[in-house]
Amino acid sequence: MRQGLFISVEGPEGAGKSTIIKKMADELEGKGLSVVLTREPGGITIAEEIRRVILDPENTAMDERTEALLYAAARRQHLAEKVIPSLENGSIVLCDRFLDSSLAYQGHARGIGMEEVYSINKFAIGDTMPDITLYFDVEPQIGLERIEKNKGREVNRLDLEAIGFHERVREGYLMLLEKFPERIKKIDAGMTFDEVYEQALNVVELYISEHRPVK
Amino acid sequence: MRQGLFISVEGPEGAGKSTIIKKMADELEGKGLSVVLTREPGGITIAEEIRRVILDPENTAMDERTEALLYAAARRQHLAEKVIPSLENGSIVLCDRFLDSSLAYQGHARGIGMEEVYSINKFAIGDTMPDITLYFDVEPQIGLERIEKNKGREVNRLDLEAIGFHERVREGYLMLLEKFPERIKKIDAGMTFDEVYEQALNVVELYISEHRPVK
Repeated sequence: MRQGLFISVEGPEGAGKSTIIKKMADELEGKGLSVVLTREPGGITIAEEIRRVILDPENTAMDERTEALLYAAARRQHLAEKVIPSLENGSIVLCDRFLDSSLAYQGHARGIGMEEVYSINKFAIGDTMPDITLYFDVEPQIGLERIEKNKGREVNRLDLEAIGFHERVREGYLMLLEKFPERIKKIDAGMTFDEVYEQALNVVELYISEHRPVK
Repeated sequence: MRQGLFISVEGPEGAGKSTIIKKMADELEGKGLSVVLTREPGGITIAEEIRRVILDPENTAMDERTEALLYAAARRQHLAEKVIPSLENGSIVLCDRFLDSSLAYQGHARGIGMEEVYSINKFAIGDTMPDITLYFDVEPQIGLERIEKNKGREVNRLDLEAIGFHERVREGYLMLLEKFPERIKKIDAGMTFDEVYEQALNVVELYISEHRPVK
């Protein structure tokens, strides 16, 4: 029986989500809660093997629907072997990217269609939906500048071309936010690290206080 | 634009379908038709890699839904790289196993559910459905005896236990036959090789004569 709390974390690269949930995991654990911080493929052998097929640079002929099915397969295995057992164990599972990434990136931005990509993910995840999803929202230009700053270089022409794609990703996320206002909580990730962190922690702590107790 | 003829071939092991369609491909080619005889993964690199993940004996923890998604992914890639280009080229594509295998084996016999397995396969294949499907129908006991005869041994206790599974596979195929009577043509595969071959060839030649001309 599922007893834990399943939190997925979404948004573009450069939104700071990975750093923030790392800190959040530490803080929640410091309060005595059991926390599992993960992301697909999450060290699950079969999911790692699937990921290797997806990322193999030799596989230039990969069809975008093949890729979407492989992501769904890796998601299923990670869910079955790691997420569900952790939830059954009463833990808080913080998962860096989940269903909504596929819907925003492959469904909307790549143009396969959100409903279609949802159908194969529904097969993959069944009823194991996140209790809440933290969506780190940031202007593509700002996210991009942060990434480049970390790499120690300036935004170039190719980066700017990619902005059109990231605009579509954001558009996809905002459509999801509108469709699932109960589940998806928007975090304004354009602010300082501390401010973004505080927003995210508040959402999670509010949810915990209002809902079931967790270990 | 699709112009060829897409024939899928279905049924249990021991029904003789592989041998029969090999002979049929030769005969049709002898009449000057362009024939592509294939089966998933069909020499397509990405599909072969996916197949390796499915069949890796180390992967004992593989969830049955992960497996179904991987089969759908391999199917998509084989379709995109080999089947669709061959059809666009005007060829007759004879494909040993396709959608209905997943529906009968994983959907019905393994118990995931035919509708569910159909949903991910619909994503994989889109509108590229077979024009006709030859379903080689045989009593599980007879199919099993043929397999064992080829191996030079007698049917044993474990084989008999497996019969329950093969009964469910056949039940699945018969449900599909009832649902898609236009597309799926039943071949009585309990007869002699020559008789089975003649039935199958008649179905294909009738279809060709009644429908579009093929190269």
